[in-house]
Amino acid sequence: MRLLTTDDLEDLTLGATLLGTGGGGDPFIAKLLAQQAIEDYGPIRIVDPAELDDAAQVVTIAVIGAPTVIIEKIPSGSEFVAAVKALASYIGRDIDAIMPVEVGGMNTLIPLAVAAELGLPCIDADGMRRAFPQVEMTTFTLAGLSASPMSLADEKGNRVAFETTSNQVGERLVRGSAMMLGLANALAAYPMTVAQVKEAAIVGSMRFCSEVGGHLRAIQRNEPGAWHDFFSLTDGSIVFQGKIIDVDRRTTTGFARGTVVLEAFDDPSRTMRIEIQNELLLAIEDGRTVVTPPDLICMLDHETAEPITTETLAYGQRVTVLGLPCAPEWRRPGMLDVVGPRAFGYDVDYVNLGGAR
Amino acid sequence: MRLLTTDDLEDLTLGATLLGTGGGGDPFIAKLLAQQAIEDYGPIRIVDPAELDDAAQVVTIAVIGAPTVIIEKIPSGSEFVAAVKALASYIGRDIDAIMPVEVGGMNTLIPLAVAAELGLPCIDADGMRRAFPQVEMTTFTLAGLSASPMSLADEKGNRVAFETTSNQVGERLVRGSAMMLGLANALAAYPMTVAQVKEAAIVGSMRFCSEVGGHLRAIQRNEPGAWHDFFSLTDGSIVFQGKIIDVDRRTTTGFARGTVVLEAFDDPSRTMRIEIQNELLLAIEDGRTVVTPPDLICMLDHETAEPITTETLAYGQRVTVLGLPCAPEWRRPGMLDVVGPRAFGYDVDYVNLGGAR
Repeated sequence: MRLLTTDDLEDLTLGATLLGTGGGGDPFIAKLLAQQAIEDYGPIRIVDPAELDDAAQVVTIAVIGAPTVIIEKIPSGSEFVAAVKALASYIGRDIDAIMPVEVGGMNTLIPLAVAAELGLPCIDADGMRRAFPQVEMTTFTLAGLSASPMSLADEKGNRVAFETTSNQVGERLVRGSAMMLGLANALAAYPMTVAQVKEAAIVGSMRFCSEVGGHLRAIQRNEPGAWHDFFSLTDGSIVFQGKIIDVDRRTTTGFARGTVVLEAFDDPSRTMRIEIQNELLLAIEDGRTVVTPPDLICMLDHETAEPITTETLAYGQRVTVLGLPCAPEWRRPGMLDVVGPRAFGYDVDYVNLGGAR
Repeated sequence: MRLLTTDDLEDLTLGATLLGTGGGGDPFIAKLLAQQAIEDYGPIRIVDPAELDDAAQVVTIAVIGAPTVIIEKIPSGSEFVAAVKALASYIGRDIDAIMPVEVGGMNTLIPLAVAAELGLPCIDADGMRRAFPQVEMTTFTLAGLSASPMSLADEKGNRVAFETTSNQVGERLVRGSAMMLGLANALAAYPMTVAQVKEAAIVGSMRFCSEVGGHLRAIQRNEPGAWHDFFSLTDGSIVFQGKIIDVDRRTTTGFARGTVVLEAFDDPSRTMRIEIQNELLLAIEDGRTVVTPPDLICMLDHETAEPITTETLAYGQRVTVLGLPCAPEWRRPGMLDVVGPRAFGYDVDYVNLGGAR
């Protein structure tokens, strides 16, 4: 067990925002929520699954919706606690620990704030070690765990509980309800035991976020060797550097969807197209697929090395695009069915970025 | 208490289909479901609320979706029992009696079949004494009762439970989930006590259906005085007779919507336009509003006097259009807010058809 204080939030937020691949919500608001929770309830207990009883009851929480909406309809906080309590009541069990479902600005920090408020530990693990737009896109699904019973809540007191025959159907149902509730809601899902966390989750993803964030901060401070350290940790590489010459964005079917086109600094005839569904999903350079899910596309401001979330993309931004291999926990049979390019409707083959971590 | 046998089904189904104002689902399939239930489980116990304990737990059930879908995706039956059981589990109480939420081919007969299967009585009452397309459009809403907790189920084993801040929000949430589950699902809603039924429901609506059905059958047999008896009972009148010269139909936003245009037999320059949202809602003759909700628009085949449901409307049909005043239980303050023309988005005033019953 370690205690997370406000001092730890900078690196964690920075790393989570980067690994959120453009999604996962606004990091600034998320950090404020976590800071407030620490001030109100004291430091947050971060635990490894090995420190908990195998039979302990865990639930993941996340904000669900479209980032384009979430920056305008800011979480109030109460809906997350409500979602956890509704799920606990539905399954008839007390919740022993909270876990993030994904890594991202809001979706890493809000579970911490909720854990603080509920007086529960937060497990250092998740189901993606990045952000994905859909509920079923987790290593939990890959391991055969059910996302349901799930509980969706809004800030007004509305609650919906789902019990579904598959996580894919669960995604459709949750999305339908979230669309009706304003597309920025709290979801408590994947109730599981600690034994199941050990088997199916990506353990240590929060620590990984903090390390990535620390290296990225060193890059931002122009420390010598910082890029080298960052790439040693992530096995990533720079896949494009250029300016945004087109952004097409629409909030539709419950997601923020769009396309962004970049033109290379060094050669205006070189262009990269990146497809967006809440997250940056697919990078294509002049017709050649360069990065595909579940590998990560991360976009940084070219000058400040600040991660850019998809809802803030704008014409003229000068950016660096990174490609990072996905967490090794993804590499199980069935990975591409759950999170490969065709799971998103892109008719292209997976390009393996490799990577050891 | 009276026992409903297969002999009673003809009049009941005919009356329910007429009062369903074109909605409420396919009566033929509904009758088969009820017949089968009586054969399997014996006659169905129909009770008046006065025969039950005031504290007894009642729940309404209905098929929810679009009639255009429901005639192709036929209810299996199991989803209704599942919805009732899920709701019972959610509220932590046994269900003592079933009640229809509305009058209509399927939505009168399916509750009977489910009551038979569950060995429960079915209360002779409902919340509309007609069919309306939306969950909140009930005398229960008018009386301040909550539709939630509600439980939606499909035939595959998916379940959604809703707890909402208003019945209007409940409608949007249920609709969103039903759209994702195929738009022909089972809804258990409006859990209430018998004391609340007495206060808020339209008691005797099933008997009224049977009486209306009996008179309509007499009309179909060309019995002398049959029309007179029918109008004495319903306070209705013939508002148009003509042939269908246009049908525009689309299944969108979770409903079967459309417009049907009629041309008078006796004067081709007279036309009537009827607006549809699952049910026949608004009748306008040459720009003059003739029938508005909550009053009933019922359409009969001109030759056979068989009620026509909206999903079977077709070019060239020769029809008789009736206008019937709504049940007197609707006439409370707030009626037009819940079921008046503007509640459906039609910017016209309510035309009071009057009526004593």
